[in-house]
Amino acid sequence: MSAPEPRYDTPLPLSGERFSAWYRIAAKSPEEARAAARALSVEQTIEFPAELTAGRIAGEVVARVEGLEETAPGVYRAELSFAVELVGGELTQLLNVFFGNSSLLPNVRLLRVGLSERLAARFPGPRFGVAGLRRRLGVEKGPLLSTALKPLGLTPKALAEMARRLAEGGIHLIKDDHGLADQDFAPFEVRLEAVVRAIEGTGAVYAPNVTAPGEETLRRARLAKAAGAGAVMVAPGLVGFDRMERLAREVGLPVLSHPAFLGGFVPKGEGGIAHYALFGQLQRLAGADVVIFPHQGGRFAFSREECAEINAGLKDPFFGLAPAFPAPGGGMKLERVAEIRALYGEDLVFLIGGDLHRQGPDLTQAARRFHEAVRGMA
Amino acid sequence: MSAPEPRYDTPLPLSGERFSAWYRIAAKSPEEARAAARALSVEQTIEFPAELTAGRIAGEVVARVEGLEETAPGVYRAELSFAVELVGGELTQLLNVFFGNSSLLPNVRLLRVGLSERLAARFPGPRFGVAGLRRRLGVEKGPLLSTALKPLGLTPKALAEMARRLAEGGIHLIKDDHGLADQDFAPFEVRLEAVVRAIEGTGAVYAPNVTAPGEETLRRARLAKAAGAGAVMVAPGLVGFDRMERLAREVGLPVLSHPAFLGGFVPKGEGGIAHYALFGQLQRLAGADVVIFPHQGGRFAFSREECAEINAGLKDPFFGLAPAFPAPGGGMKLERVAEIRALYGEDLVFLIGGDLHRQGPDLTQAARRFHEAVRGMA
Repeated sequence: MSAPEPRYDTPLPLSGERFSAWYRIAAKSPEEARAAARALSVEQTIEFPAELTAGRIAGEVVARVEGLEETAPGVYRAELSFAVELVGGELTQLLNVFFGNSSLLPNVRLLRVGLSERLAARFPGPRFGVAGLRRRLGVEKGPLLSTALKPLGLTPKALAEMARRLAEGGIHLIKDDHGLADQDFAPFEVRLEAVVRAIEGTGAVYAPNVTAPGEETLRRARLAKAAGAGAVMVAPGLVGFDRMERLAREVGLPVLSHPAFLGGFVPKGEGGIAHYALFGQLQRLAGADVVIFPHQGGRFAFSREECAEINAGLKDPFFGLAPAFPAPGGGMKLERVAEIRALYGEDLVFLIGGDLHRQGPDLTQAARRFHEAVRGMA
Repeated sequence: MSAPEPRYDTPLPLSGERFSAWYRIAAKSPEEARAAARALSVEQTIEFPAELTAGRIAGEVVARVEGLEETAPGVYRAELSFAVELVGGELTQLLNVFFGNSSLLPNVRLLRVGLSERLAARFPGPRFGVAGLRRRLGVEKGPLLSTALKPLGLTPKALAEMARRLAEGGIHLIKDDHGLADQDFAPFEVRLEAVVRAIEGTGAVYAPNVTAPGEETLRRARLAKAAGAGAVMVAPGLVGFDRMERLAREVGLPVLSHPAFLGGFVPKGEGGIAHYALFGQLQRLAGADVVIFPHQGGRFAFSREECAEINAGLKDPFFGLAPAFPAPGGGMKLERVAEIRALYGEDLVFLIGGDLHRQGPDLTQAARRFHEAVRGMA
């Protein structure tokens, strides 16, 4: 075996424009942390023996470890920077650079992502955002009210009737339950027409679920726009963040992001993607105007701190991308309104599901009670 | 508040055809496990107060807990069955039923999925599978050899030259590194043409990476087929399993599945998707003919048992779906050939990357050594 010698370089000059990502690395010593950060910089870029690279590949194509600090015993925070040329303008590859192979490393968590000028121009973020959605709904301030059409099994007629009653009670955003796809119970197009007609003139906006295979997602979103639905919902965990980004950019309706099948990335052990990035930054990067996630204390296990992180990730300055609405849900109850509002502030979509139905058979009355509880304080 | 009364049912009859999924539930007592299994059956289907449903929705649309047994102290295995009507024939919704909201539950792991007659007809699995890929490559038995073109930064000409040397050394499947997308260093179409031409007549097959936003995945795959590439590679974690399924069904080339951005689902804590399902069954369901994953002892942290599980999930009987090749990689070395072969058996794609380049600058010689090590035993 001959001794390795650096022999791989590129003739193409790089622009020098770089973007960063921050990672949490679990390591037993500073030396181990440094080695892990260096390994990560190779893993996310060339995935190749670094000692065989030279020149621009060694100096610019491989990620650079820009910083590494111990933030708690055995826990380090590393900043890596990447050449913008690695991305080629594609969200799939940007996500791959941020957390492709590293998603498989048990001791590395993606904490926060950065952008660069060129990336922020390519991925302009939410098309409506907080301000745009407020304009569309004609609700200048205070939290928005939202609920879901369900259960799966109801006919389009029954779902439309439910939507009308909820809209008459003052719900702003009426979305499909995320399990409503294109089943025989309530085929997408029939449901779409029925619900849109049923809430006409109420001021409420319907967001049908367009999570579907391949181009069907975009086709259904275009049908929704043509029919007069005011928004759409999609689950990026199921269709990919890039399809949501395309939806936001090409269709021109506000986009609600649903967390189904995203739970794998929630931090467990030492890995995963921090709530700030997973339900905040990456969602804005992919164009979501409203991001649904389980609020602390419901059926799921997010902590109060994690929910606050999501709120920050949706509203923090982020290279000029518009802020988006948090929509905490997952087993919300009317009596929690004040507490939830205190945590998230004014710019909040209050999402309540089953508990509305538990108030009794008069859904309009139940919705009014919800409206009063939330908006009475506005 | 009036007392709740069951009031939601469906007028549509169901066929009675059902499919199952198996979950691991962490619980402190049998009662807690039973409650968790019941809650899961609601979460994956109606996501609605079960006490308000009646008739067919209560009896057939809500998942049924078909079995629940304690498999270790505090660990239960639950079988849930679902009406085939919940799926509407769409892979996105099938995945949502299997593990949509439950991906967010910290104490639930998806262990194994089942199908039904109608689902197996709709999702026929790998188009080539083990037998079909062997025919295409003209390699009747023994492990296949594979490696990746890298590092990112090389020009199409340099990558093509590398491919030619590797093909001359007897590598069967030459794939792009998963970081090669459509960057200026080596734009997809230029790279495709250069590599295909470079290995013409050698018998090797090139699998370009078609992971890309939206329809671009399919467009690149069709370009690959037209140019004479013999396979394609895609990362379902980045583009969604449904896009891989469409690729397999519509384009007609063998599909290599790459694990980038899938790591979130690897079991951590009590959640996640078991290796058997994540790298085995779900991949076959979505049409992968070759599934790449990190072998035990490389740069990642899969155990030997988890790798054996993947192998079983790729080859077990599964409602008639063809078996697919495991392609363990992630820091493999020549000296591990015998051990790896013993674990996976004959039907194996042996994937080696950086270590080939560490053998010295003569890649053909390095590939021959790899060929001898693996196929010398055939």
